[in-house]
Amino acid sequence: MNPSLYILKIGGKVLENDVKLENSLKVFSKMEGAKILIHGGGKKASEFCQKMDIIPKMVEGRRITDAATLEVVAMVYAGLINKKIVSQLQSYDCDAIGLSGADGNVIQAIKRPVKTIDYGFAGDIKNINKQLIINILNQNLTLVFCSLTHDKKGQLLNTNADTIATSIATALVDNFEVQLQFQFEKKGVLKNPKDDDSYFKKIDADDYIIYKQTGIITDGMIPKLDNAFAAKAQGVKKVCIAETEII
Amino acid sequence: MNPSLYILKIGGKVLENDVKLENSLKVFSKMEGAKILIHGGGKKASEFCQKMDIIPKMVEGRRITDAATLEVVAMVYAGLINKKIVSQLQSYDCDAIGLSGADGNVIQAIKRPVKTIDYGFAGDIKNINKQLIINILNQNLTLVFCSLTHDKKGQLLNTNADTIATSIATALVDNFEVQLQFQFEKKGVLKNPKDDDSYFKKIDADDYIIYKQTGIITDGMIPKLDNAFAAKAQGVKKVCIAETEII
Repeated sequence: MNPSLYILKIGGKVLENDVKLENSLKVFSKMEGAKILIHGGGKKASEFCQKMDIIPKMVEGRRITDAATLEVVAMVYAGLINKKIVSQLQSYDCDAIGLSGADGNVIQAIKRPVKTIDYGFAGDIKNINKQLIINILNQNLTLVFCSLTHDKKGQLLNTNADTIATSIATALVDNFEVQLQFQFEKKGVLKNPKDDDSYFKKIDADDYIIYKQTGIITDGMIPKLDNAFAAKAQGVKKVCIAETEII
Repeated sequence: MNPSLYILKIGGKVLENDVKLENSLKVFSKMEGAKILIHGGGKKASEFCQKMDIIPKMVEGRRITDAATLEVVAMVYAGLINKKIVSQLQSYDCDAIGLSGADGNVIQAIKRPVKTIDYGFAGDIKNINKQLIINILNQNLTLVFCSLTHDKKGQLLNTNADTIATSIATALVDNFEVQLQFQFEKKGVLKNPKDDDSYFKKIDADDYIIYKQTGIITDGMIPKLDNAFAAKAQGVKKVCIAETEII
């Protein structure tokens, strides 16, 4: 049997809140076996854009990454948040190493082609260098990825952290029993957005279609669930959105 | 005989100038054998501090790193500059991986004790994890270090890049024939600061004492030369400040 690999994506308000982040990292640091953490940082990036008088541009909940925004994204994701997480994990005796997709050419992407919307320096994943990931995990290091990729032509690109988590998880299914969890500020996928305890224990693909049709699942949860179901369909052993298991 | 290792520290105005940086990285990417690049980024950090209305504090040419400045330093060094360099090297088919001292606990430091001056979050190097460096170099990866360390208690620290270069070089002298070069905007250690071509071809320790006494070598060059002589004394095979060789 393949060894286990736990992949945790941390996003949303967990990254904003020092206490929540600390708790998450403490729990993560204690997990047995090989581990990968993936983080975004969009809200923090927007905050720094504001400080620098760069106006964040969003279309349909997705960031439009112009050159100035990309600089901020690189600084906040790969610098501020990634190194903060790595140093905190180190303090819990979890030997973490933080990478962007450019490092070791680990996540190669292509700049998203312009169709109706020009997303700017947004990257769609082309290749995961799984051998590098395996080599690093085999040194008993815990990987911490920020959501920054590159095109191997010298251009950094901004890539959605959920998509990175799914791509890394699915790239490693032949080598590990992969468990993938998307953590955010809620306890799971909620039946009632106003009731934090109303989360689904489990959702299967048929339920998901119905819940979308009936409007129980909407908006920001849809890309997250699409990523989760894609991971499950591609052989990830266990996929959870917070406490909601995708079956 | 040990394999060769070339360590290049890039600093000063080379980092400020896209053309100069590109040229340096192109030459570096073509060097044979194991390679490590170390960079600072103080001027860029000062620039971003200004954009965010943080006033850079300097005492005797050294940065006082308060909490707000440390955030900027982490963003600029580990995010902006490190990932820019890594992605550029990747585009030249140099398989680079960028780290801070927190990653893999590779450079552990202690917060500089307060004597007459409180340097804030400045770190003095305590330990280099040379086994991790060797393991990564053995995977045919080129290491790119930014000048950010940590105390293993969750605190990032700002450490002088020349000192990091010297510490890494000397830590590896038993495993490699190490060559260390400090690159900056001048061609070498100048006899006459107004004449860029007046650089010394070679300097030995006796010369250095005389040049300091006679005021030919002053100011910013002194810590650089002190680092260079320390590296040479501790077994680094060849040490150069730009084209000036320390003998």
